[in-house]
Amino acid sequence: MIKNDLIIRACKREKTERTPIWVMRQAGRYLPEYRAIRDKVSFLDLCKSPELAAEVTIQPVDIIGVDAAIIFSDILVIPEAMGMKLSIEEGTGPVFSKPIRTEADANTLMKIDPSDKLKYVLDAVSLTKRELNGRVPIIGFSGSPFTLLTYMVEGKGSKSFSNIKRFIFQQSTAAHKTLDFLSDNIIDYLSAKISAGADLVQIFDTWGGILSPHHYEEFSLRYMEKIVNELKVKTDKPVILFSKGIGPSYEKLINTQADVIGFDWTIEFSSVVNKVAGKKAIQGNLDPTVLYASEKTISEEADKILNAVGSTGHIFNLGHGIHPDTEPAKLKFLVNYVKEKSKRL
Amino acid sequence: MIKNDLIIRACKREKTERTPIWVMRQAGRYLPEYRAIRDKVSFLDLCKSPELAAEVTIQPVDIIGVDAAIIFSDILVIPEAMGMKLSIEEGTGPVFSKPIRTEADANTLMKIDPSDKLKYVLDAVSLTKRELNGRVPIIGFSGSPFTLLTYMVEGKGSKSFSNIKRFIFQQSTAAHKTLDFLSDNIIDYLSAKISAGADLVQIFDTWGGILSPHHYEEFSLRYMEKIVNELKVKTDKPVILFSKGIGPSYEKLINTQADVIGFDWTIEFSSVVNKVAGKKAIQGNLDPTVLYASEKTISEEADKILNAVGSTGHIFNLGHGIHPDTEPAKLKFLVNYVKEKSKRL
Repeated sequence: MIKNDLIIRACKREKTERTPIWVMRQAGRYLPEYRAIRDKVSFLDLCKSPELAAEVTIQPVDIIGVDAAIIFSDILVIPEAMGMKLSIEEGTGPVFSKPIRTEADANTLMKIDPSDKLKYVLDAVSLTKRELNGRVPIIGFSGSPFTLLTYMVEGKGSKSFSNIKRFIFQQSTAAHKTLDFLSDNIIDYLSAKISAGADLVQIFDTWGGILSPHHYEEFSLRYMEKIVNELKVKTDKPVILFSKGIGPSYEKLINTQADVIGFDWTIEFSSVVNKVAGKKAIQGNLDPTVLYASEKTISEEADKILNAVGSTGHIFNLGHGIHPDTEPAKLKFLVNYVKEKSKRL
Repeated sequence: MIKNDLIIRACKREKTERTPIWVMRQAGRYLPEYRAIRDKVSFLDLCKSPELAAEVTIQPVDIIGVDAAIIFSDILVIPEAMGMKLSIEEGTGPVFSKPIRTEADANTLMKIDPSDKLKYVLDAVSLTKRELNGRVPIIGFSGSPFTLLTYMVEGKGSKSFSNIKRFIFQQSTAAHKTLDFLSDNIIDYLSAKISAGADLVQIFDTWGGILSPHHYEEFSLRYMEKIVNELKVKTDKPVILFSKGIGPSYEKLINTQADVIGFDWTIEFSSVVNKVAGKKAIQGNLDPTVLYASEKTISEEADKILNAVGSTGHIFNLGHGIHPDTEPAKLKFLVNYVKEKSKRL
């Protein structure tokens, strides 16, 4: 069915003829072709227009040559579908005008039926599936419960994360109830994406790393595990867990049912491989800002990663989303380099 | 000389009758007594007024009962003394109007004579020394070379750190030259602080954690080592290294000549103690936002730390600066709790 199924096989730790690569935020502002579409439509309208979302989803497959398409969307469409008013402004980022601060606030959140409120995402998946025609796999994604809750409580970007920390430390029962409710919604959402055609899914835990390790387990990991366990009952599609900035806590992800652990660039793969190999596939982890450097530096840094992980069970990726001010030619160089070099390893 | 020298003895991993405690940003906005002074004078004017700086330095010793005073100042007074125009505005934070972006920019930086351009800091140390009259030790501090360079290149707060990353990856020779020059200035500055009366020093490496581990070694750790090595030739005062967000790279600090490794809250001490104990003292590491919680939660979280580290070679601290919206009574509760509980351990 899928012509280039390298990523699927890497997820299962099967031998592949080379290391596959995709890049977080590969459908994004660094591409002039994406900006041309965004000149005509807002970010949220782009998310909500299945035709345009499918178009920008496929752009990096055509232009950069990545080994997977990831459905263009935003992690905050879930809280929006649960009833929170969301606006996303260039520069300031996402804003919820009425953030969750109390149990009463949380009780106003509605259970979503993905085929109703989030139909536009499922339509984008089906449309992408048809247009890709099996060239590469399609990745569906969701934010983790804790990451969604962080945005829902903070209401907008934060440096101190005081509001979410107050919420979990002062109202932990309400926090756990909301995290559990979010988990149920995410399970339904990812299941619907898979039914619509997603070949694998990734859970983005952007903010798990702001917690101490035991709070990470309590408020973030526990709920990601609930989601993975449920998905594994419903489907055989691979699941990637990506918790940013958790340092040594990645070891706790080895014991989950996820297929792949995603790493940011602050972990050295040479110290990870012995613990993870044979148990989980590994995704990552080039510092996205290395793409500002010369081709020589980019290839040296890519080599460090390729040499440390070896050729089996590795999905090359950046350690975080590609920066909007990256030259597309640099990403293309990296993609070609990883493809060619890993063939020879 | 110093009546309460618990922190000095903990730095040397000598037995102490209880665990000492101080708190990063303990002289700060969370204290009404500090805000009363700041109502009358700007942040930078406060730094530059030795009498007022000494007054706010001593406030937490009197009001909270911490076991050390840390000289009220800002890490960015060094680049300012090197010739960069600095302004600090409430809300937006520090701003350099002409950030460093090229080697030519870096070449305009001047070598500082601390007894000239930074005399106000040394005067604040002497004055604090006189007024404290040996009650508790005085901590002098500096930003790490990489952390100072990050602010100098970014010019203001950043989420992506694109400018500093471009600088180190595209102009690495200029970056290394500037880091080395900053190191020399910091050595002179910390030495002068010690001569003026500081009993120990801490190097704050706020931004080392944005680098991958091998880049952390190359651009941050190497220069902190240069500083520590030089200080250890000149003086026997203890040195604390605090690199925020470096995860497992703390292991590299064990091999430096520093006396104490400072930890943020994202590392679990139970996983650290076996590697560090007997080699370095340990400082930290309560999540500062735990002070939003109830006294019950605060004491439980403090217990986790006290029980993991044991009573020798530990300086209790928060894992980062105290938040301005913390109730002073909560900090006072923590300080008393740590003092009383550690006596009984």
